[in-house]
Amino acid sequence: MAPTSLSARFGQSVSPDALRSYLAEFISTFLYVFCVVGSTMASQKMMINSAADPSNLVIAALANAFALSSAVYIAANISGGHVNPAVTFSMALGGRISVPTALFYWFSQMLAAVMACILLRISTVSTHVPTYTITSEMTGFGASILEGVLTFALVYTVYAAGDPRRGPLGAFGPLTIGFVAGANVLAAAPFSGGSMNPACAFGAAIVAGSFGNQAVYWVGPLVGAAVAGVLYDNVVFPSQASDSITGISEGGVGV
Amino acid sequence: MAPTSLSARFGQSVSPDALRSYLAEFISTFLYVFCVVGSTMASQKMMINSAADPSNLVIAALANAFALSSAVYIAANISGGHVNPAVTFSMALGGRISVPTALFYWFSQMLAAVMACILLRISTVSTHVPTYTITSEMTGFGASILEGVLTFALVYTVYAAGDPRRGPLGAFGPLTIGFVAGANVLAAAPFSGGSMNPACAFGAAIVAGSFGNQAVYWVGPLVGAAVAGVLYDNVVFPSQASDSITGISEGGVGV
Amino acid sequence: MAPTSLSARFGQSVSPDALRSYLAEFISTFLYVFCVVGSTMASQKMMINSAADPSNLVIAALANAFALSSAVYIAANISGGHVNPAVTFSMALGGRISVPTALFYWFSQMLAAVMACILLRISTVSTHVPTYTITSEMTGFGASILEGVLTFALVYTVYAAGDPRRGPLGAFGPLTIGFVAGANVLAAAPFSGGSMNPACAFGAAIVAGSFGNQAVYWVGPLVGAAVAGVLYDNVVFPSQASDSITGISEGGVGV
Amino acid sequence: MAPTSLSARFGQSVSPDALRSYLAEFISTFLYVFCVVGSTMASQKMMINSAADPSNLVIAALANAFALSSAVYIAANISGGHVNPAVTFSMALGGRISVPTALFYWFSQMLAAVMACILLRISTVSTHVPTYTITSEMTGFGASILEGVLTFALVYTVYAAGDPRRGPLGAFGPLTIGFVAGANVLAAAPFSGGSMNPACAFGAAIVAGSFGNQAVYWVGPLVGAAVAGVLYDNVVFPSQASDSITGISEGGVGV
Repeated sequence: MAPTSLSARFGQSVSPDALRSYLAEFISTFLYVFCVVGSTMASQKMMINSAADPSNLVIAALANAFALSSAVYIAANISGGHVNPAVTFSMALGGRISVPTALFYWFSQMLAAVMACILLRISTVSTHVPTYTITSEMTGFGASILEGVLTFALVYTVYAAGDPRRGPLGAFGPLTIGFVAGANVLAAAPFSGGSMNPACAFGAAIVAGSFGNQAVYWVGPLVGAAVAGVLYDNVVFPSQASDSITGISEGGVGV
Repeated sequence: MAPTSLSARFGQSVSPDALRSYLAEFISTFLYVFCVVGSTMASQKMMINSAADPSNLVIAALANAFALSSAVYIAANISGGHVNPAVTFSMALGGRISVPTALFYWFSQMLAAVMACILLRISTVSTHVPTYTITSEMTGFGASILEGVLTFALVYTVYAAGDPRRGPLGAFGPLTIGFVAGANVLAAAPFSGGSMNPACAFGAAIVAGSFGNQAVYWVGPLVGAAVAGVLYDNVVFPSQASDSITGISEGGVGV
Repeated sequence: MAPTSLSARFGQSVSPDALRSYLAEFISTFLYVFCVVGSTMASQKMMINSAADPSNLVIAALANAFALSSAVYIAANISGGHVNPAVTFSMALGGRISVPTALFYWFSQMLAAVMACILLRISTVSTHVPTYTITSEMTGFGASILEGVLTFALVYTVYAAGDPRRGPLGAFGPLTIGFVAGANVLAAAPFSGGSMNPACAFGAAIVAGSFGNQAVYWVGPLVGAAVAGVLYDNVVFPSQASDSITGISEGGVGV
Repeated sequence: MAPTSLSARFGQSVSPDALRSYLAEFISTFLYVFCVVGSTMASQKMMINSAADPSNLVIAALANAFALSSAVYIAANISGGHVNPAVTFSMALGGRISVPTALFYWFSQMLAAVMACILLRISTVSTHVPTYTITSEMTGFGASILEGVLTFALVYTVYAAGDPRRGPLGAFGPLTIGFVAGANVLAAAPFSGGSMNPACAFGAAIVAGSFGNQAVYWVGPLVGAAVAGVLYDNVVFPSQASDSITGISEGGVGV
């Protein structure tokens, strides 16, 4: 039965609806990575000298808030608006999407991130695509903890936003998810980069050809996302009735 | 029959309701262009020296986000809140508005852009109205690609926002459309200008008397907008029932 | 009959509900003026040297957007959330509130503005309260035109937001009103100050003891507000049924 | 009867639902303090020289607006989203939550603030955690007044947002609460710090080991919050029917 079930689940993962979900994830992640990496390139382009300027932190935070909010919004009713492999990982762990579907989501997200960085590099004739880096005083372990805490906050908000028991607050999900991302960047960008998104870090690293500290941007976010999902579903706001989980997919956000 | 049909459609395009739509487009586009071009003039006015300052990028992005969100909002229930010839072009291609109506929309939008720039120049006694320019390293082709991608994201969001299947998320359309514009400006302003709006680029160019690279701000956005509309309507989220398209005009946004 | 009617309308203007409205206008205008004038004092305090910095424009715009949005929100269901004598003037012209009530609104708004500036000056031990000024190249007439256009956009948005035919978009009114104010400040602050609010300009001028160009901040906004109200109610979106105007006060915003 | 009643109320305060509320307050306050204190550390990290830069004010305001809005949102349906001992104090004074529950809320909030500051200090290997300070010209009394006014505005907005008579505007509560916090920071941060939150000031002070002016960040906010609650409930918008208070907990915000 298991192989049959597996092939059935794989069949579901290549249905027309599923393919549309992957396209929606591709478009949303492309938009997000394009704006986040592009805004870093833009602020470097605007600096005459290389001195750090706090305005760059404002630019990075607004780009994250505006772009993530929009990216989640446009995909919300199609793919659930994950836009982030860490969110997909947490949803798969909690059984909200199947593992084959999650793998297709990951592939779409990472392909989109790479394509966005390639487009940015070619169209702007840049020699350099900025990657996420950690500041020299910090260890990789400290940076992983920091990225994990940031991603915990982000994914916890995704779960809260997608909860059908929210009532009219549910529609504010994409906006709030963007705001959490913006607040996190303001707090952590000069320390660990404030990525919270393995696809974004991966795309920039591939195109720049520089993989230093990639582990930080995968281990921290995946662990943080897993903890957020487990904590929300089981401790903070457990569902009394099992059908409420099904109900999330209608009109809800982030699932 | 065709001439009769054409004259009937033209008759519809000059009905009182249609004229109100053109006025609404005029007011919204005026507000948008006034704030976007005015904010560039304001940030140039505040700079003692001519060095580039990343704060100017924040100013441009916030002006786009705030002004476009508001401009779409105030026109949403009257003209659909296009505020942009590229959106109108895409809607006409998809058959959502008739070609004569689209031409009147274009005229209203471009007249509003020119008037906004004239008012700014006269009332502030400025000798200079800023136009969109591309950075020296880039080619016109690269800039058109970049503007096309930006406009794709914007128009795709307009389609997503105006889809009646969004449920309560629909009302967040104007806000999200503004956020996409802001994110796009953060990513692309120092490279191609980040216009996404042929009327805005045209109005500034007319009043400044400088038409360099105008093609970039027309070809890229129109192609990007057309692709976004076709992709959304036919691939990502095709309508099962034909009446859902009619339903968009009630309470929806962006149509 | 006229004197009787006048005294009846005056009686309505001092009913408990009306008094609560004035208190709500006082609190909202106090909050708005406190944040707008305070943010200018704060950005001056943070500058080591007196050079202009574009960040100050961002500060002024965000303070306007955040504070006006909040001020309108908290008063929306009580007094209608005018927070601005120009809005009250336009509503009185259109017959939406009676003239005695409008005069009490004006008094509450101006008293709140003066109190906010006094509190700022005393608690921060400042010797100087910033007032709105126009840049040296501009004439008072040009500045009045500019302030009039800004206030037109603001009040037009107030009318659009308060229209019951907006459906679910109506609840976005306070947010959008704040965004219009922010966009306007980004476009016009370095030229005419970007006040759009006679009470705010008046309060700062009283406490600073400097009344230069006060006329600019009264004539422009009042004319712009009047034109916006007349245009919205009679041309852009005339009401088909007279009862829709009454309906605005339930759940609507800005009326 | 009194001891019985007290033990019954204490029993309610340790029920599973109550424990979940404390966890939700912990998570939200952690997120808020992490972003607010972290953003101050981030902007200090980005400054090459020690000169004040107005961009830091933008960073602090956006961090407050984004983080408080999100923190209130994610806890809204669980604990009411206080995120602030001053809000809890006002709610307890008004009888909306019992005193034992309020004490547990306070404990959760303060523990979260201390933990957030410890995490920031350790993970970023910083030697310094920034605390709230008042500018040298101001007295402690003036700063308490200023913090009291700021907290009044914040808590008044919390009451307005949680009022079930708001209708569809109610769902905008978390967003508006964040905007008020952002506007207040823009107005007051360079003078009194703009804390409005005793837990945040306490957490930073504990970890930095510097308790100067702590009284300012407790007395001002608690008095301001108490006045806001009493004024809203009894004067501005008194409830006609007693059951409307019960109704707040369903779908409302901030209570």
